[in-house]
Amino acid sequence: MNSRIMARLATAALVLLLSFASAAIAQDPLPSWNDGPTKQGIISFVAKVTKEGSPDFVPPAERIATFDNDGTLWAEQPMYFQLLFAIHRVGVLAPEHPEWKDKEPFASLLKGDVKVALAGGEPAIVQIFMQTHAGMTTDEFEKLVEDWIATAKHPVTKRPLTEMVYQPMLELLAYLRANGFKTFIVSGGGIEFMRPWTEKVYGVPPEQVVGSSIKTKFELQGGKPVLVRLPEINFIDDKTGKPVGINQHIGRRPIAAFGNSDGDLQMLQYTAGGPGARFCLLVHHDDGEREFAYGAESKIGTFSDSLMSEAKGKGWTVVSMKNDWKTIFAFEKN
Amino acid sequence: MNSRIMARLATAALVLLLSFASAAIAQDPLPSWNDGPTKQGIISFVAKVTKEGSPDFVPPAERIATFDNDGTLWAEQPMYFQLLFAIHRVGVLAPEHPEWKDKEPFASLLKGDVKVALAGGEPAIVQIFMQTHAGMTTDEFEKLVEDWIATAKHPVTKRPLTEMVYQPMLELLAYLRANGFKTFIVSGGGIEFMRPWTEKVYGVPPEQVVGSSIKTKFELQGGKPVLVRLPEINFIDDKTGKPVGINQHIGRRPIAAFGNSDGDLQMLQYTAGGPGARFCLLVHHDDGEREFAYGAESKIGTFSDSLMSEAKGKGWTVVSMKNDWKTIFAFEKN
Repeated sequence: MNSRIMARLATAALVLLLSFASAAIAQDPLPSWNDGPTKQGIISFVAKVTKEGSPDFVPPAERIATFDNDGTLWAEQPMYFQLLFAIHRVGVLAPEHPEWKDKEPFASLLKGDVKVALAGGEPAIVQIFMQTHAGMTTDEFEKLVEDWIATAKHPVTKRPLTEMVYQPMLELLAYLRANGFKTFIVSGGGIEFMRPWTEKVYGVPPEQVVGSSIKTKFELQGGKPVLVRLPEINFIDDKTGKPVGINQHIGRRPIAAFGNSDGDLQMLQYTAGGPGARFCLLVHHDDGEREFAYGAESKIGTFSDSLMSEAKGKGWTVVSMKNDWKTIFAFEKN
Repeated sequence: MNSRIMARLATAALVLLLSFASAAIAQDPLPSWNDGPTKQGIISFVAKVTKEGSPDFVPPAERIATFDNDGTLWAEQPMYFQLLFAIHRVGVLAPEHPEWKDKEPFASLLKGDVKVALAGGEPAIVQIFMQTHAGMTTDEFEKLVEDWIATAKHPVTKRPLTEMVYQPMLELLAYLRANGFKTFIVSGGGIEFMRPWTEKVYGVPPEQVVGSSIKTKFELQGGKPVLVRLPEINFIDDKTGKPVGINQHIGRRPIAAFGNSDGDLQMLQYTAGGPGARFCLLVHHDDGEREFAYGAESKIGTFSDSLMSEAKGKGWTVVSMKNDWKTIFAFEKN
């Protein structure tokens, strides 16, 4: 083939492929979202930042979208799921720690009384995490999480935890990626707790997960190079930590951010503060029938009145799970 | 069009595109590398990990390759280039710091005597970096780096610093990416010093750059959300820090790693320590005519005798710049 014919054939092939692509896009990309201003707002934003020549156009490399995890991509009630993992680990490790029988917060956890165990607040939680999340290699920890999440069930719905993800958010992640966005998780949860399953569940690879972490140390164990997890906090990816974590890991300011609580405020402020078109969204848990209704009065995952008024003042989108979401969990459909 | 015809046309279009792709691959992907065991080793490794059904096959998502920067992707003599930036900043800031005239290491730097200034070792270097790299927002720092690197010239060759990159390594980065690898920089240099230009120069976007960092703090400055750079070390991405930084940012063990000094040893050990096919390479600066010849006796960017013997013992590839590289810098060609 000469190069002119090759070039023409290549062009023809590309036009053909693009026509299939646009046919696919013509279908509703967000079928679990009810029609209305929320869904329309998302679609308008994506349309304007992806339209070449538009004043709001953003090159693909800068289409960074960040998502909180607990309460934004999957449920976080009756308690955030990493705590379920930690409690499970306390049970497994208890035989090696006879002293836990008389020592809080472990004593109450072993009796099944989570509320009393957590009454100790932040210090109690840190103790639980340091005892259950440190002291092994990163490879060993990954295996522990993988094995646990393969069978872990939600205490109320009895569904696998990996099914407690919001179908509308899965569609949103896929829709953004189909439009050239790079989707990141930016969560207060443990980075190494999320990475073993985020690719399978959300399509987000480990290198696009930002989270809280403990310190690790490089060691040669019998000649084998490993990273050992130390009982020392490295970084808390929450509140003012979220913009810091975003800058550290991504190095670009997102143009879209998605959260559900006061812990996401600074990530949304940081996202909104850049030049050009921006999109900020908060998921409000107002559907007590299909999910869990909670707000300012809840201990975990708060959505305070002041967050709601900041969102309204700034024109951020607030999702009413009750009104905006046709389906919440994929398993409802069956 | 009915769907059967559409499917056939799509298949035809794909076959056509793939044939162009394979025609492109048939050309030598590493034209600046001389034929020989080094080049052959790279090509054999890529062939076996990308061949589906091969026992060494690695899925694209796990094809992580990490590259040191100074002395591996671009030159680092007569001193690493971030130090040139710091010295430039000392000059710019000097009028605001009359006390520097009598205070080391600044006094010597202002007199142009870098050697005396650096005689203070690590503490002197930390002082220079804290004074020149902190105290502004991340956006302001990015602009400082961008403006500087747009005109900065190499003190010996007088070439723009962004031309002091190794042509064979640019080809290697492109070759790996064309084979489904994700290429990361993992450098002892400052993460925010590299990010403003790595995409343009190496094709590596900011989110794929791992480096040393100082702490940052989220603030609302007159309502504007910014990150302020603080004069406090956050992380040193060198030696045992490299595997830690890789795990923190990427969350997967690389299958290929590229370095040039003792600071890269643990990254190479960590890479080599995983299961399956692995590729580790060290660039040896043995070409005093076309570049700079330096080894164990050099203060900066050491390649010690013990590193050389570890490389030989482990079967890692050692590049002789003199013998393995046809071209070192792209500008030589002219």
